[in-house]
Amino acid sequence: MEWAQVSGPALIALDWGTSSLRGFLMSAEGEVLAQRQSSHGIQNLPGPGREGFEAAFTDLCGEWLAAHPALPLVAGGMVGSAQGWVEAPYVRCPADVTTLAAHAATVETPQGSVLHIAPGILLDPEDAQPDVIRGEEIQIAGALAEHPEWAEAATVVLPGTHSKWLDVKDGRVTTFFTYMTGEVFAVLAKHSILGRLMPENGEANEEEAKAAFAKGLLAARDSHPGDLTHQLFAVRTLGLTRRLNPVVLKDYLSGLLIGHELTSAAGRTGAGGAGGEGTLLMIGDAALCRRYAEAFDVFGVRCAARLENTAPAGLFRFAGAAGLLPA
Amino acid sequence: MEWAQVSGPALIALDWGTSSLRGFLMSAEGEVLAQRQSSHGIQNLPGPGREGFEAAFTDLCGEWLAAHPALPLVAGGMVGSAQGWVEAPYVRCPADVTTLAAHAATVETPQGSVLHIAPGILLDPEDAQPDVIRGEEIQIAGALAEHPEWAEAATVVLPGTHSKWLDVKDGRVTTFFTYMTGEVFAVLAKHSILGRLMPENGEANEEEAKAAFAKGLLAARDSHPGDLTHQLFAVRTLGLTRRLNPVVLKDYLSGLLIGHELTSAAGRTGAGGAGGEGTLLMIGDAALCRRYAEAFDVFGVRCAARLENTAPAGLFRFAGAAGLLPA
Repeated sequence: MEWAQVSGPALIALDWGTSSLRGFLMSAEGEVLAQRQSSHGIQNLPGPGREGFEAAFTDLCGEWLAAHPALPLVAGGMVGSAQGWVEAPYVRCPADVTTLAAHAATVETPQGSVLHIAPGILLDPEDAQPDVIRGEEIQIAGALAEHPEWAEAATVVLPGTHSKWLDVKDGRVTTFFTYMTGEVFAVLAKHSILGRLMPENGEANEEEAKAAFAKGLLAARDSHPGDLTHQLFAVRTLGLTRRLNPVVLKDYLSGLLIGHELTSAAGRTGAGGAGGEGTLLMIGDAALCRRYAEAFDVFGVRCAARLENTAPAGLFRFAGAAGLLPA
Repeated sequence: MEWAQVSGPALIALDWGTSSLRGFLMSAEGEVLAQRQSSHGIQNLPGPGREGFEAAFTDLCGEWLAAHPALPLVAGGMVGSAQGWVEAPYVRCPADVTTLAAHAATVETPQGSVLHIAPGILLDPEDAQPDVIRGEEIQIAGALAEHPEWAEAATVVLPGTHSKWLDVKDGRVTTFFTYMTGEVFAVLAKHSILGRLMPENGEANEEEAKAAFAKGLLAARDSHPGDLTHQLFAVRTLGLTRRLNPVVLKDYLSGLLIGHELTSAAGRTGAGGAGGEGTLLMIGDAALCRRYAEAFDVFGVRCAARLENTAPAGLFRFAGAAGLLPA
């Protein structure tokens, strides 16, 4: 019987977004040895500007660095944006983890170490609207590290506030599209007339909620160009006419918006459509991914796999590409 | 030389909406002899419930009624909604001003008179989403009173917070579609990430603003089903990449949303499209109608006429149909 070699900490990796900061203490083999989390996203720092980033960093990593002062440090996400600790300007498509490593930004920590920050990716075609990702490129690197068989051709969906659909070819991100699905849902439910009929409390029957969600999906699937701002009004009128129980109006709205996202993205990406050739993957929060999986079923789209959080694996690969890990 | 007969007050007509209350003292010939306005829309009353409506009514009309206690009283708009003074339940399509008069609700005023309130119209087809109007049916009645030549077949657009597109045939409203264009614009500009890059102050060059508006319109015109939540993100990325000056990002957003409305509505209504048969008319605020007129130009849609406020004429017709005017 043989034992796998267990090595000590070799890397501190930070997934530093808008609303949260997550840190991973990792081994030379890429295992997560320990992890810590704080609410110090870049919009919620414990102080202004540089001081805020430094305090959040020390709060999360101070003990790890006190015990292992020489560990290399990497980070991805909004910490590298123009509003971040230091800006890591966008690289252009196509890009892979090597491209990210070659364009990393660096900043000195209060402990005197150097933090290497991954850039985001900019898509800026002449004949279409620009688009950007920052953080998702690290998730993709992690997914491809865990599943190298997907590197040749895949479409990856990351549902969320701003859902991202990315095409990967030969290990590189070649194109992507952002959908403001989650944010549009939130602002309409909270700030528009559509939220008026939605009860603050009130448990929906699970079957009824699912049926309302599916009804929204189908309305979206059968829509014509420009229909969304008309269809949104149905969230009100289906409630007014009691065709839908008020407790499931938010499910209908969710189905409508996710359905519009699928309708559009399936046509734009390589594997999103029912007739797509590549593999469709999904990365994200389990509950949200379940919702999207229901939508894929209704649309007849096959999703090959769901992954929960590939950021640690992606940051580990980024660190390797930046030459920060033992060979 | 003959003088037109000038008659005294024969009607008090109220256009009572969500955010404002407007009153018109009218002659037996339908002329507006005097008008008054207050901010006492049904969401902004000077007191709770019935008391609030009564106080707002007396504040606006008390002097008129003191001078002319026997005048008939009519009202249209949200005052007849479930949140109004008294509910005038929706009538079904098709409907004309006679239908409205036959289903008017009544409420007694503090002065002992009876106020006749017009109902809204409900469209509730089995195979499509329900829709409602309340107030617009009075505007339509006014437009047809002023221009009987349009009664045979017309499509009427009323741009606004909730834009309405209505088909009129043989003097009756036969179908209509609501677009939440104005409200979606407002909540996105104020509560979403899209407002972040929009400067609070800063005057746009008029030509630059018009070009950004047209750019948004064209993106909408060329869109595929489901594209809107993706295209919205361009309001951010066109700013980030400096392809658009931040001071005109709101014009781009406006173009995108109005463009989606036109793209969808032109296909749904009788006269909205370039190939439409009927007459396309527009009723509303002059500045907003100018914006829509620019959009019609870009889409190659011919709008036959713009009317500013046809509510007094519509309320006058409603009063006539209700038998409240001298024959």
